[in-house]
Amino acid sequence: MIEDTLIAQQNEAREADLRSDYDALGAQLDRRGISIDAIRDKVAAYGVAVPSWGVGTGGTRFARFPGAGEPRGVFDKLDDCGVIQQLGRATPTVSLHIPWDKAPAADLKAKAEEVGLAFDAMNSNTFQDSEGQAHSYKFGSLSHTDAATRAQAVEHNLECIEIGQAIGSKALTIWVGDGSNFPGQTDMGRQFDRYLDAVKQVYAGLPGDWRLFTEHKMFEPAFYSTVVQDWGTNYLIAQELGEQAFCLVDLGHHAPNVNIEMIVSRLIRFGKLGGFHFNDSKYGDDDLDTGAIDPFRLFLVFNELVAAEGAPGFDPAHMLDQSHNVTDPIESLLSSAMEVRRAYAQALLVDREALHGYQEENDALMAAGELKRAFRTDVEPILAMARMQAGGAIDPIAAFRASGYRAKVAQERPAVSGAGGGIV
Amino acid sequence: MIEDTLIAQQNEAREADLRSDYDALGAQLDRRGISIDAIRDKVAAYGVAVPSWGVGTGGTRFARFPGAGEPRGVFDKLDDCGVIQQLGRATPTVSLHIPWDKAPAADLKAKAEEVGLAFDAMNSNTFQDSEGQAHSYKFGSLSHTDAATRAQAVEHNLECIEIGQAIGSKALTIWVGDGSNFPGQTDMGRQFDRYLDAVKQVYAGLPGDWRLFTEHKMFEPAFYSTVVQDWGTNYLIAQELGEQAFCLVDLGHHAPNVNIEMIVSRLIRFGKLGGFHFNDSKYGDDDLDTGAIDPFRLFLVFNELVAAEGAPGFDPAHMLDQSHNVTDPIESLLSSAMEVRRAYAQALLVDREALHGYQEENDALMAAGELKRAFRTDVEPILAMARMQAGGAIDPIAAFRASGYRAKVAQERPAVSGAGGGIV
Amino acid sequence: MIEDTLIAQQNEAREADLRSDYDALGAQLDRRGISIDAIRDKVAAYGVAVPSWGVGTGGTRFARFPGAGEPRGVFDKLDDCGVIQQLGRATPTVSLHIPWDKAPAADLKAKAEEVGLAFDAMNSNTFQDSEGQAHSYKFGSLSHTDAATRAQAVEHNLECIEIGQAIGSKALTIWVGDGSNFPGQTDMGRQFDRYLDAVKQVYAGLPGDWRLFTEHKMFEPAFYSTVVQDWGTNYLIAQELGEQAFCLVDLGHHAPNVNIEMIVSRLIRFGKLGGFHFNDSKYGDDDLDTGAIDPFRLFLVFNELVAAEGAPGFDPAHMLDQSHNVTDPIESLLSSAMEVRRAYAQALLVDREALHGYQEENDALMAAGELKRAFRTDVEPILAMARMQAGGAIDPIAAFRASGYRAKVAQERPAVSGAGGGIV
Amino acid sequence: MIEDTLIAQQNEAREADLRSDYDALGAQLDRRGISIDAIRDKVAAYGVAVPSWGVGTGGTRFARFPGAGEPRGVFDKLDDCGVIQQLGRATPTVSLHIPWDKAPAADLKAKAEEVGLAFDAMNSNTFQDSEGQAHSYKFGSLSHTDAATRAQAVEHNLECIEIGQAIGSKALTIWVGDGSNFPGQTDMGRQFDRYLDAVKQVYAGLPGDWRLFTEHKMFEPAFYSTVVQDWGTNYLIAQELGEQAFCLVDLGHHAPNVNIEMIVSRLIRFGKLGGFHFNDSKYGDDDLDTGAIDPFRLFLVFNELVAAEGAPGFDPAHMLDQSHNVTDPIESLLSSAMEVRRAYAQALLVDREALHGYQEENDALMAAGELKRAFRTDVEPILAMARMQAGGAIDPIAAFRASGYRAKVAQERPAVSGAGGGIV
Repeated sequence: MIEDTLIAQQNEAREADLRSDYDALGAQLDRRGISIDAIRDKVAAYGVAVPSWGVGTGGTRFARFPGAGEPRGVFDKLDDCGVIQQLGRATPTVSLHIPWDKAPAADLKAKAEEVGLAFDAMNSNTFQDSEGQAHSYKFGSLSHTDAATRAQAVEHNLECIEIGQAIGSKALTIWVGDGSNFPGQTDMGRQFDRYLDAVKQVYAGLPGDWRLFTEHKMFEPAFYSTVVQDWGTNYLIAQELGEQAFCLVDLGHHAPNVNIEMIVSRLIRFGKLGGFHFNDSKYGDDDLDTGAIDPFRLFLVFNELVAAEGAPGFDPAHMLDQSHNVTDPIESLLSSAMEVRRAYAQALLVDREALHGYQEENDALMAAGELKRAFRTDVEPILAMARMQAGGAIDPIAAFRASGYRAKVAQERPAVSGAGGGIV
Repeated sequence: MIEDTLIAQQNEAREADLRSDYDALGAQLDRRGISIDAIRDKVAAYGVAVPSWGVGTGGTRFARFPGAGEPRGVFDKLDDCGVIQQLGRATPTVSLHIPWDKAPAADLKAKAEEVGLAFDAMNSNTFQDSEGQAHSYKFGSLSHTDAATRAQAVEHNLECIEIGQAIGSKALTIWVGDGSNFPGQTDMGRQFDRYLDAVKQVYAGLPGDWRLFTEHKMFEPAFYSTVVQDWGTNYLIAQELGEQAFCLVDLGHHAPNVNIEMIVSRLIRFGKLGGFHFNDSKYGDDDLDTGAIDPFRLFLVFNELVAAEGAPGFDPAHMLDQSHNVTDPIESLLSSAMEVRRAYAQALLVDREALHGYQEENDALMAAGELKRAFRTDVEPILAMARMQAGGAIDPIAAFRASGYRAKVAQERPAVSGAGGGIV
Repeated sequence: MIEDTLIAQQNEAREADLRSDYDALGAQLDRRGISIDAIRDKVAAYGVAVPSWGVGTGGTRFARFPGAGEPRGVFDKLDDCGVIQQLGRATPTVSLHIPWDKAPAADLKAKAEEVGLAFDAMNSNTFQDSEGQAHSYKFGSLSHTDAATRAQAVEHNLECIEIGQAIGSKALTIWVGDGSNFPGQTDMGRQFDRYLDAVKQVYAGLPGDWRLFTEHKMFEPAFYSTVVQDWGTNYLIAQELGEQAFCLVDLGHHAPNVNIEMIVSRLIRFGKLGGFHFNDSKYGDDDLDTGAIDPFRLFLVFNELVAAEGAPGFDPAHMLDQSHNVTDPIESLLSSAMEVRRAYAQALLVDREALHGYQEENDALMAAGELKRAFRTDVEPILAMARMQAGGAIDPIAAFRASGYRAKVAQERPAVSGAGGGIV
Repeated sequence: MIEDTLIAQQNEAREADLRSDYDALGAQLDRRGISIDAIRDKVAAYGVAVPSWGVGTGGTRFARFPGAGEPRGVFDKLDDCGVIQQLGRATPTVSLHIPWDKAPAADLKAKAEEVGLAFDAMNSNTFQDSEGQAHSYKFGSLSHTDAATRAQAVEHNLECIEIGQAIGSKALTIWVGDGSNFPGQTDMGRQFDRYLDAVKQVYAGLPGDWRLFTEHKMFEPAFYSTVVQDWGTNYLIAQELGEQAFCLVDLGHHAPNVNIEMIVSRLIRFGKLGGFHFNDSKYGDDDLDTGAIDPFRLFLVFNELVAAEGAPGFDPAHMLDQSHNVTDPIESLLSSAMEVRRAYAQALLVDREALHGYQEENDALMAAGELKRAFRTDVEPILAMARMQAGGAIDPIAAFRASGYRAKVAQERPAVSGAGGGIV
């Protein structure tokens, strides 16, 4: 972990400017009838989970280029996640992935406590074959034609729940790669029936205070059809399963041009929005850093979320889910958590009464202008103030670099060779 | 109409070759365990509706370039549709669009009988303003913020049902252009609530033996959000409405890359596939001729339909819905009806037992190969034989050109000037 | 036109707040080593042309819903454009479209002077048929198979140059709708040869101090192929033509997901960037208001332009080109001109030396962060100050609404009925 | 290799039916003025290269699921490629990938001769880091900011040429993954300058009788920008390099909806079409089996190629380039080579004189119909006859399965564990 004195030192040099910017913005917002402190408080209370696998360098099917100090296992990962939370104060929980993060529950809990984290949703993995696994997932898992393979996948998900219960998690996220690469390879109707049947068995094992999140994705790793391909299919699943089942929206899992905020609106309306996997994308499931490509789209999603705040039963989960191929993963996660909070803060600035009035009058220009005004407000002073007051760094990236953390762990953790991607 | 002797003459020159090709194909199919006559009979019984508006030349927002002999009104349109059925024998019904086709029911029925046609689904229009209309649809219709505008749109749909009842229709198709052009212009949740509330009022007026088809479309004429944007929303609507409500799939109304046959599969599985608007597209809702751009995709849709044949309650409606900007609309509709039957015939050739076996074994190559074998079979002799035996032309385009029909109506129907599209 | 006293009145109520915001931002920028006044001066000197056709309400192939006070002809349009410039001070020139805007040159010049405008690039129209035109453009214009049609299209472009010379224009923009709707309809190689041959004839008639801009577009009104479909083809044309020929980039004319700023970079590198048609889009050539959908993309385009500022021969033209279907066109053009200037101002804030350093070190996170920092700076005070100091309105939309201009012209200009789009 | 007697046995059971189908098709084509034997001869002379890496099971960034008998190195790969040629007789050459296939030239030549193959274009690899490599390609290769890294990449390409010369290759294909994942990460102009400078150094080392193929790709492994992103940039490169430089078109490397056959037409027109990497795709660079998703698109590409046959200097190279994730790679390559020949055969059936006539008359329906008639002709008897007469199998997949080859090599080659993809 990073010394608190270093953070304090770093902040000292920046605090006066921050206060000046914060006051100027406060005065401006005041004129718009908004209390900057109230916004700051809401932002400070807003957390997003980090995925344990996110702290390792990601790759493509062509190659992976590891960085220095790659985490060797779940305990290294928890150290890295701890640093992210220490500096950014926006990511109080971590989401584990089984079997990658398997370890004794007591050890996991002890480590988490040590680094100041709690556990978020559990993630199962039936898109890869593990050492010693009886049945291969090459042709599917929960929807496989073979009953034994399906049973194995169900069993694995139940085990994830069990592990999760031991460490204080309250949700299971299921993403499967099942689908097909050729027209005709699979009977799409029967395949979905098998999926439904299997996922119902998982649902049956869900503790009463847990939620089940299913995740849709248009394509990849299957390239002709995917069994849970879009929100429509995802909604059917959640509806078939029952009250504890919800749809998870990954921002990168949609067809080109799709209006994602509208999907969010529909799922909210029908009570099935479970939460998000935040990232950004330009071409496909690029898994780029949140807000890196289209920050306005991220804001529009949060515009829907803020509008729904306080509705009965509305309680979406938030997690970053990105692939960091060319940056230091800790820096990317720090930065992305800030982007999520930025979009949230901007959405809080929308004058919803005024907006509603413009909408009722079909005053498209003023309605759009109201959103744009909120979006273009530079809320950085709000985010920085919330961080600083919670013990984090005004400039977390600068503090991280100043800390020497990466160099330190690079000495402890052996270098990893650039193993090839899937094509070799 | 066209003289039967002309058709006979035209066929005479082609019949021997047709019989020879039919026999050769029959022998080949026989080896595959398929009776060519049985396929021909199924094809002969398969009809697709033509849209009344399809016989006029279409256009874009930039321009419309009318052809010779443009129909002046619904009775001219019915004449043209009668010729299409006479030559092609695949389009026994026509689908009317209100208010474009408003006329006394008795006259419509008499004309239809005269030209050998019956009436298919009714189509309402709340995406344009009509002369003397009290409330404008500029900002929406069934989902408008103004209650009076919504009521007017509901009323119009109820009137369409009334007209339909008088002429023997059994279904209403609703497509609305409602949506928004700016983020924020509309509250997407409330807008959908208003839509649902209004469409429920239409549904309440549906006769017991009618079906209601709602149609989704990703974009256009609204360019940021559309109230019924995809099959997921469409399914929610059909589910909310009840047993007589179904989803209509227009092949051109989806996001790029979307797997449409999978959507068809899902809607079949959940009992909500109402039918199709057939056309083809490359970029958006291009409304190109069916099968013109991606004939294999059309085949894959029919592969799902044939697999579902005989399932309880499975009875999708079929209609062509295209914009003929650079061809003679009669020729395009003749040709497209053939393409629909072609895809149907090819799908009938799939050995479903073998396919199922390959699927169970995850033999992707053989499964895909089975579909490809059916698709690449040249079923033209089957289509032509079905046409000829029903009194149509072996080569309908050639017969149409030989008939001089277009030149004849061009003399009766005044030339139309090239009115500009929407941008002027 | 609008009374200057009204503008003064409107500004009076806002000036103190503006000065306060400007000072606060100035202090912040000062810390980043940036002079706010220098940015304001550059912004004030930056103009974007408005298209004469933009002040009329646009439509789609489905419908057009005109607003009140639609301009009756080019002189009404110039009045409207004059108001836009008066309030916004960002649009000193107007771009005419022939034949829509045909009028005696002396009258055009007099009117322009009266409303404080000059003339930008001329636009030809060979995508519609005009009254009394000898040859139809249904199947193409500059690339038509018929030599006489091509000659007519060349002649029309030469006439546009002639008109332009009389009114002080220095450029011709050519956009054609030529292409095809069916595979096979056209021989794509020969069609391009014919296009090249014809456009060379236009180029031969270009005055020595003029530029020729050709515009590419992926699709619409042609839906299978377009003769100038992308920047690659556009570049080939400009190269074939010569030194006075350049490529025009319309932001809405690309395939889904395409990286437009990279195309801008390539055209700059090879000396062929002619200029822009600004607008925004989500699905296709939606012609939405500039910056309405993806403001970060607009910023990234300007990031390339600012980086290239000062390079020899670098002098791109800028024009808004949008379709205003649901807003008051004057308001949309006012707002969009502001968005263009906003992106320009944000791009000016990038610390290019620091950015270059990060790029050289492959510090992706810091490089991206530098762009994001510039983008998220709220430069509204800079834009407003530039407007006010040039005699415009601090809040142009509010001033326009307060002026009663729309109501006034609605009394003078007769109401237009909602003519249908191209499909009827 | 497979026993010739097995092939003979397999053919014996099918030959009579083949002859019967061939004769029936021959009679039909005869009526269309086409000699079936002439088509068969052209098809028989048409070869497509297989990529050495294609015979191994491919994967995604999520996982790779190897099959039985995965090749252990280049000599196993050549064995597999030999079997493909033996059964299919359509793939007389193999394309090597360095460093994956590095081996003594004499051994490579001896093995190739043994299995009846020659060597096609060489492929360099600067998208992965190799053991012991001095500089990493994490941030680029030919366009890297670091001169030493660029030099290393140039050196590697020169080495590929050297190896190629030793084994009889006559072309080098360069595909790089260089690009960026964040706006701002790279200066897109300078990056392209560096690429051009480096590739010119490779070109300078090209023997006088070689060709250099550069390959464009929209995205992946870079997800915001790619240095050779489209055919426009690719064309600029080939033009800058000189007469021996050509553009290679991979069917899966384009933006959604793009008209690929038009790009082919443009490159032909400007003398820069180098050749193809055949595969199919639905969502991105899916690398699916050629013709699996959109066989009509493949036909339309061949329609351009056949139209250009015989033009001076027109001599494109053809290679399969696919990822076989769920099939036996040998079967997929056999099947895909057949699909390439199928599209070629269909394109040969187009009556080009008639087509040209329709095009001149703007008879879109008949022009499109002429292409469709050729496409829907079932040319399988022609392909099978060409195979059989060249010593291959009438049904190569059936013969391969009957041969037991896969089981045999699975005994010799050790099982490979399902190594994870790039994300772990």
